[in-house]
Amino acid sequence: MPEGSAALHDVVRRQRACRSFDPSVAVSDDDIETVLDAAVHAPSAENTQPWVFVVVRNHRTRRALADIWASAWAIGSAQIRTHVDDALFADLERGMGGGFGTAPVVVVVCADLDRVDELFAECSIYPAVQNLLLTATGMGLGSCLTTGLTSFFVEQVRDLLDLPGTVKPLAAVYLGAPDRRLGPPRRRPASQSTYRERYGDLW
Amino acid sequence: MPEGSAALHDVVRRQRACRSFDPSVAVSDDDIETVLDAAVHAPSAENTQPWVFVVVRNHRTRRALADIWASAWAIGSAQIRTHVDDALFADLERGMGGGFGTAPVVVVVCADLDRVDELFAECSIYPAVQNLLLTATGMGLGSCLTTGLTSFFVEQVRDLLDLPGTVKPLAAVYLGAPDRRLGPPRRRPASQSTYRERYGDLW
Repeated sequence: MPEGSAALHDVVRRQRACRSFDPSVAVSDDDIETVLDAAVHAPSAENTQPWVFVVVRNHRTRRALADIWASAWAIGSAQIRTHVDDALFADLERGMGGGFGTAPVVVVVCADLDRVDELFAECSIYPAVQNLLLTATGMGLGSCLTTGLTSFFVEQVRDLLDLPGTVKPLAAVYLGAPDRRLGPPRRRPASQSTYRERYGDLW
Repeated sequence: MPEGSAALHDVVRRQRACRSFDPSVAVSDDDIETVLDAAVHAPSAENTQPWVFVVVRNHRTRRALADIWASAWAIGSAQIRTHVDDALFADLERGMGGGFGTAPVVVVVCADLDRVDELFAECSIYPAVQNLLLTATGMGLGSCLTTGLTSFFVEQVRDLLDLPGTVKPLAAVYLGAPDRRLGPPRRRPASQSTYRERYGDLW
């Protein structure tokens, strides 16, 4: 494996959700510029590059976003408890119960619908988000891709960030120094989800 | 910048769409396993890992997919011509006019709706696709993320690959050796799409 490939492989395999941060460690403008430079190198439909990034550091806005999560968790956690395992439940509770509020930076990633047809918004935004997350991981930053705020609380997010109707929020990404050592991500092997030629013939 | 970060940065900045391939260069099972291992390390909603990969090498299936593209291009190219620049138009024509048919492998990436709510299908699939594309780039493979077949010709794709109704195709990714040297991707700087605290206050 070439050296660059090995380094990429290592970052890809280490990346995982961080849902609680050390608020005393700042994320610099340079750090943010580095992860967003990676983001904009992702592919997008017809190279429309329709991403819009709103970088939130303001305490009041972050507090408002964290409060939405806390309310949502109070309502939804019992239902979530029924279908996720103990480790994931504890980690979700850590984040939605207050951990997300400890992230010094939230990047709200949106699609500019003046640039891209809404049909191609998601496929043009989430690859950019993944570049952002991988680059944050490579830099030693914790990160978490969340879509709950932008799925269920869009109007509140829109109000908080002054988003016009043509700018559709699709993700809130939390960034900061992890407050504890993160283990490796837990994944099933790809072979369990891979088929040859047609669905049904497992790899 | 740590060494791993620099290597990742390099791959991220080099990745770009390849729409025409050298059909004489094979993509091995090992290569495919490497890119799919990267894919399954991406985040997904509540770690549901809902991805399904159908790896197509069969000539007849690839021909059928390429024929759909060629027909779509014959109908849609005049309209596309009105809003993309010359370089991109030439490249799209290369792909849809026959180049995609030269890729020795097509990976159709789907979401298993028995694992994930449809609302969270896209945010759980496109990060995995991006891991796949970056890893292919790191290995020197050309790749292209396309969503046209899975947006406009879903039923034909479903028939070709025996996909059940609960498996939703979201991308066709072409893989192979590029048939020519690819230049760097063309992107606007992130600063043009980045705001501080609220939409409107540019970075």
